Amino acid sequence: MSGNAFERERLIRFSDCDPAGIVFFPQYFVMFNGLVEDWVEEGLGVGYRKLVMDRRIGLPTVRLEADFRAVSKMGDRVVLALEVERLGTRSITLNSRCTSLADGELRMQMRQVLVTTSLESHKALEIPQDLREAIESGTWAT
Amino acid sequence: MSGNAFERERLIRFSDCDPAGIVFFPQYFVMFNGLVEDWVEEGLGVGYRKLVMDRRIGLPTVRLEADFRAVSKMGDRVVLALEVERLGTRSITLNSRCTSLADGELRMQMRQVLVTTSLESHKALEIPQDLREAIESGTWAT
Amino acid sequence: MSGNAFERERLIRFSDCDPAGIVFFPQYFVMFNGLVEDWVEEGLGVGYRKLVMDRRIGLPTVRLEADFRAVSKMGDRVVLALEVERLGTRSITLNSRCTSLADGELRMQMRQVLVTTSLESHKALEIPQDLREAIESGTWAT
Amino acid sequence: MSGNAFERERLIRFSDCDPAGIVFFPQYFVMFNGLVEDWVEEGLGVGYRKLVMDRRIGLPTVRLEADFRAVSKMGDRVVLALEVERLGTRSITLNSRCTSLADGELRMQMRQVLVTTSLESHKALEIPQDLREAIESGTWAT
Repeated sequence: MSGNAFERERLIRFSDCDPAGIVFFPQYFVMFNGLVEDWVEEGLGVGYRKLVMDRRIGLPTVRLEADFRAVSKMGDRVVLALEVERLGTRSITLNSRCTSLADGELRMQMRQVLVTTSLESHKALEIPQDLREAIESGTWAT
Repeated sequence: MSGNAFERERLIRFSDCDPAGIVFFPQYFVMFNGLVEDWVEEGLGVGYRKLVMDRRIGLPTVRLEADFRAVSKMGDRVVLALEVERLGTRSITLNSRCTSLADGELRMQMRQVLVTTSLESHKALEIPQDLREAIESGTWAT
Repeated sequence: MSGNAFERERLIRFSDCDPAGIVFFPQYFVMFNGLVEDWVEEGLGVGYRKLVMDRRIGLPTVRLEADFRAVSKMGDRVVLALEVERLGTRSITLNSRCTSLADGELRMQMRQVLVTTSLESHKALEIPQDLREAIESGTWAT
Repeated sequence: MSGNAFERERLIRFSDCDPAGIVFFPQYFVMFNGLVEDWVEEGLGVGYRKLVMDRRIGLPTVRLEADFRAVSKMGDRVVLALEVERLGTRSITLNSRCTSLADGELRMQMRQVLVTTSLESHKALEIPQDLREAIESGTWAT
């Protein structure tokens, strides 16, 4: 759908790492959650905090598939990137990946399906028009 | 391979939840990581701490697929369960699920491939014999 | 005020530990937050989830002092304990400590002041009567 | 000792917040741990990863006192700042604070004593000479 990736650099911190000195895998999902936040806020120009806190619309994950290819260590600089694979009525499918900034080595990739939901009822909602249009335009600020 | 599930109850805590008042999805993976710890230690009788700290063998996840079916809220009691789908030379494939203790509602399920690795080189190792035998016996303490 | 401690055992997990293989100190506060939850729910018999989600009353920390005396390692069993030092109009001062289950070694201790607040306005509220009475009774279920 | 503060901006993220929609207090310590990392690495020019992973020197916290003055909400931009209060033989005392970027409101402040330790023995070590000199110079890159 796009070819238009949204990217952010991220330093792997002490607090991201486990007793093996490498990123504890659930922490990748925390990092990518932050990337989605930045994409909505800065890339799409739809206020993320307003979406969640004022409009009470959430973006929970309903499905994900992830492959962990190489370890990331404390102090590594990585690039987190996402692309939209599919935009449904109520769902957004993203392809994301984490690569080493130094040499582009693929560390981890995932496919993630998000749905827009009411934070009151936790039921799926149609993707709000402003969010849909911003995604469909396919050209976002990086 | 088994039909023999390893289970633990878990209370959903304030610290597991996000501003929507429901489990923040990466936290499921933290919970299941704890379940694997308990399974290795208590179910299989292979010391987890010794495995990691003394024998320097890790159990990183190389692939996972997860479906989130219903939300878990603060104060919910859930049951975390795992079964072995496949035991390879260097990998263990688990099917895990989180259900509501009250009514059995499926909250989340996943398929996860773990590999045994050297914590020095981060390379895959053959599954140690004691771990393999304990899994193959297929009857573990619950 | 009491001498009556509320205690829970806790296993130090892989996910509690940092690249040094010991508890990452912020994680102690997550553990003690869980202890306060259990104390309110099980010790005092005041529903914690109802307090937070339905009655919209929070228990944020406004001050803490903590001393870290010895490291806790993955696989350690520890005892978390709290006592009430002072019960104010809007605040509860707790003395808490984490000790080794095996030998009683003090790992960490803290003094923490909690206030009851409205989760709408984030302003301090008088401690609700049921919570006050349960604390004042000074004898809680363990 | 200095008057020379080391500062970094930080966005308060969804994953930093609790079911009350505000920063879960242990998360402040995770944020400040990141600030100390940046200070050592970028401010003092002493490689943090090398310090921890190669030289096996840790910087655990042995004491902290913290006051939480006002809530930080998802989407807030805050400034994290630290100053050195005292440089001992084996310890570094820091005064840190989190303020709102928008209006300077004080959200949280703390006094924290770090010690340099061996990550093998977990015993205190004298502060390494390069770290000491960089701190004593009192003028660091911001």
